[in-house]
Amino acid sequence: MKAEIIAIGTELLLGNIVNTNAQYLSKELAALGYDMYYQSVVGDNFERATNVIKDAVNRSDIVLITGGLGPTPDDLSKEAAAKALGLDLCLNEECLKQIENYFKKSGRKMSDNNRKQALFPNERCIIFENLNGTAPGCAMIAQNGSEVLLMPGVPREMKMMFEQQIKPYLLKKTDKTIYSENVLVAGIGESMLTSLIPEYIDSADPTVSPYCKTGLVTLRVTSADKDEATAKQKCDKTVNELKNILGKNVCGVNVKSLESVVVEQLKTKKLHLATAESCTGGMLSKAITSVPGASEVFDFGATTYSNEMKQKLLLIDRKIIASHGAVSPETAVNMAKGILNYANADIGVGITGVAGPGCSENKPVGLVYIALADKESVWVMKLNVTGATNDRDKVRESATVNALNMIRRYLTYLPNKMPNETDFNNPIPYKPEETALSELAIKGV
Amino acid sequence: MKAEIIAIGTELLLGNIVNTNAQYLSKELAALGYDMYYQSVVGDNFERATNVIKDAVNRSDIVLITGGLGPTPDDLSKEAAAKALGLDLCLNEECLKQIENYFKKSGRKMSDNNRKQALFPNERCIIFENLNGTAPGCAMIAQNGSEVLLMPGVPREMKMMFEQQIKPYLLKKTDKTIYSENVLVAGIGESMLTSLIPEYIDSADPTVSPYCKTGLVTLRVTSADKDEATAKQKCDKTVNELKNILGKNVCGVNVKSLESVVVEQLKTKKLHLATAESCTGGMLSKAITSVPGASEVFDFGATTYSNEMKQKLLLIDRKIIASHGAVSPETAVNMAKGILNYANADIGVGITGVAGPGCSENKPVGLVYIALADKESVWVMKLNVTGATNDRDKVRESATVNALNMIRRYLTYLPNKMPNETDFNNPIPYKPEETALSELAIKGV
Repeated sequence: MKAEIIAIGTELLLGNIVNTNAQYLSKELAALGYDMYYQSVVGDNFERATNVIKDAVNRSDIVLITGGLGPTPDDLSKEAAAKALGLDLCLNEECLKQIENYFKKSGRKMSDNNRKQALFPNERCIIFENLNGTAPGCAMIAQNGSEVLLMPGVPREMKMMFEQQIKPYLLKKTDKTIYSENVLVAGIGESMLTSLIPEYIDSADPTVSPYCKTGLVTLRVTSADKDEATAKQKCDKTVNELKNILGKNVCGVNVKSLESVVVEQLKTKKLHLATAESCTGGMLSKAITSVPGASEVFDFGATTYSNEMKQKLLLIDRKIIASHGAVSPETAVNMAKGILNYANADIGVGITGVAGPGCSENKPVGLVYIALADKESVWVMKLNVTGATNDRDKVRESATVNALNMIRRYLTYLPNKMPNETDFNNPIPYKPEETALSELAIKGV
Repeated sequence: MKAEIIAIGTELLLGNIVNTNAQYLSKELAALGYDMYYQSVVGDNFERATNVIKDAVNRSDIVLITGGLGPTPDDLSKEAAAKALGLDLCLNEECLKQIENYFKKSGRKMSDNNRKQALFPNERCIIFENLNGTAPGCAMIAQNGSEVLLMPGVPREMKMMFEQQIKPYLLKKTDKTIYSENVLVAGIGESMLTSLIPEYIDSADPTVSPYCKTGLVTLRVTSADKDEATAKQKCDKTVNELKNILGKNVCGVNVKSLESVVVEQLKTKKLHLATAESCTGGMLSKAITSVPGASEVFDFGATTYSNEMKQKLLLIDRKIIASHGAVSPETAVNMAKGILNYANADIGVGITGVAGPGCSENKPVGLVYIALADKESVWVMKLNVTGATNDRDKVRESATVNALNMIRRYLTYLPNKMPNETDFNNPIPYKPEETALSELAIKGV
């Protein structure tokens, strides 16, 4: 069964409001097993609205319309739908009583133009009472069997009417359910990732679609079937295969975020984290504390923005900064060690880099060093964020995500040491004698 | 001139994301003087996308398409647009070089499917380089003179390409010039704000449209005219009137952000800021360091998430926390004083509150205390973030914005002391003897 959504309202075309109704209904219809091919928005214009509805009725079994059921002259969804379906509107006495009662209950005086809201076709039409407003909805049935479902535009009224009346009405018609799982992947860019799993990206059932955020890709695995158990089975199989292919780059399945994964790992392993940030300026600390309950595993995050503070709080020898620079693997490593000691934590992370737009120490914008220290060892990675010249935020976000992923990998390998792998952006153990350290090109995403 | 917007992406049809791009572009196109009659969303399906584009090209002069420019097989916007316009795609060497360079810079390996992103028609096509990603955009010109403009779907990349390349391109086509000024307002909610300036919200020229973010409203004043001077004149007049009405709640005109205003003020007055955060977990520090050059005025930000760290770094007497609680005006005040001293700054800010979802110390989610200390005095404000029960981020963002606004107001009043006003969310001087301090209800936004 094909469904589509039409929002009617000039306020959407002017950008005064976002069409959140479309997202809500899309999810609901997908869950009901409807195939959704189109969404449209049209203004409060009779002719254009009528034509959009006509097109929709010709290509979809169910057409959901939100908005334009109000009492004012520019509310014309019912009129346009009736016209598109060759139906006439006339006053529905029962419906009028319901509206009059609604006004009585709320102690408000009903104005004459509210009578407009009681106009409905007296054939091929099912009326849905609005328990939360004055505008009733309805289903108008077209000659070809397609149905046009009209709902209020106010999200609260629309959702209530959908939940209480439209959804049960639609459930009777469908025969499929849809099941989805989300696989969160870090450390591989979208194109590289999809090139690793082409047969899954092309697969029709389950479908696998990638959604990208800086440094992260979510693979949404979706399957449709008669019963949920079968759909879930197919998804689980695919998810497991993806996990085998992508290995440690998979952060989790149906997890909220990379930071939530890290916080959960820390809780399970009863380890405490502390962070020392320069270029990210608190972004890592903010990400970790965005997870409820982070206080169990995170005591202290420092934004040591000046060299003086790096020396005072983290006890970094000024000679190190003088000889290697504030943006250097050596400084990152000593930030990680310094914060580990100050906060008496189990894991310390240090981040230093050039966020731009200006270069510092003649080092390029986008160059970032991230170090992770535990009580025995230290690892460091070099990151080059590209296309960053005009995008300070991108450098900072990328550095933050890579730091979180570094912590995740460290915790995933425990009780073993995080190895020095040469695949995707992995940190490498820090050896002071490695003078060419800062030349190491370790790929970041 | 008629314009319409098409978003291409199955993730929108499944309701995985909201189509915020459509809202952004609607506002921008309205400001450019385009009439907008339709918006559509179609999935990653070649045939359906092609047909939607064909319809759009027949009824609109400008068709803006977002999404589907990625390297994966299901990214097919260019292919569909070319088909709809009867154009062929072939490899554009110059464009390929740009993409290869983008990868070179990052030391990342370009996978073969990225070549797809360099495919463009070699006639009736203008390519827009993507400075923030791998997917270039373009304008394809139809036989009937209509134009299809393709942009990335990632909002950040889309907005940058629109601002830097598409908008100037479109401006050339209109006979009018559009002039806009943005007035940033803090400390008043949208409904209260609009109720203060109804005649401006209704005005047709200049138009005044409010854009809201947590705790902030940007009033966009726009005027269209044959010459820019006249349009600017009209905007300036309105902006000055708005400034008179809204007084000190106006943070600035055409400023980048509240944090950029604060950093500029600090630079001008040559003052250094340090922050101590609990519930915001580094969000304030992150906001300040998001401003280029913040290092001139910001040396240190601390996320003291545990009571131990509040004691160790900020030297807060454990008795204060024990008797008043970690979430109390007393703790906030001592955090501000403590960080001021530790970082030897001119201004210290302390934030402590209940971000939720769980309550702490039997205090309600959304209760936040923000303190500001200079070398002589301390101010504190109480914030009740409402509707925050399930929204940890909302509490943290609201606290951060209110802290920034408190710093801004403090700096605006200098060399005078920030008064204890009773209008919108103003801090009040902290007097230890005021035992009922924590009962003071100072409205936050």
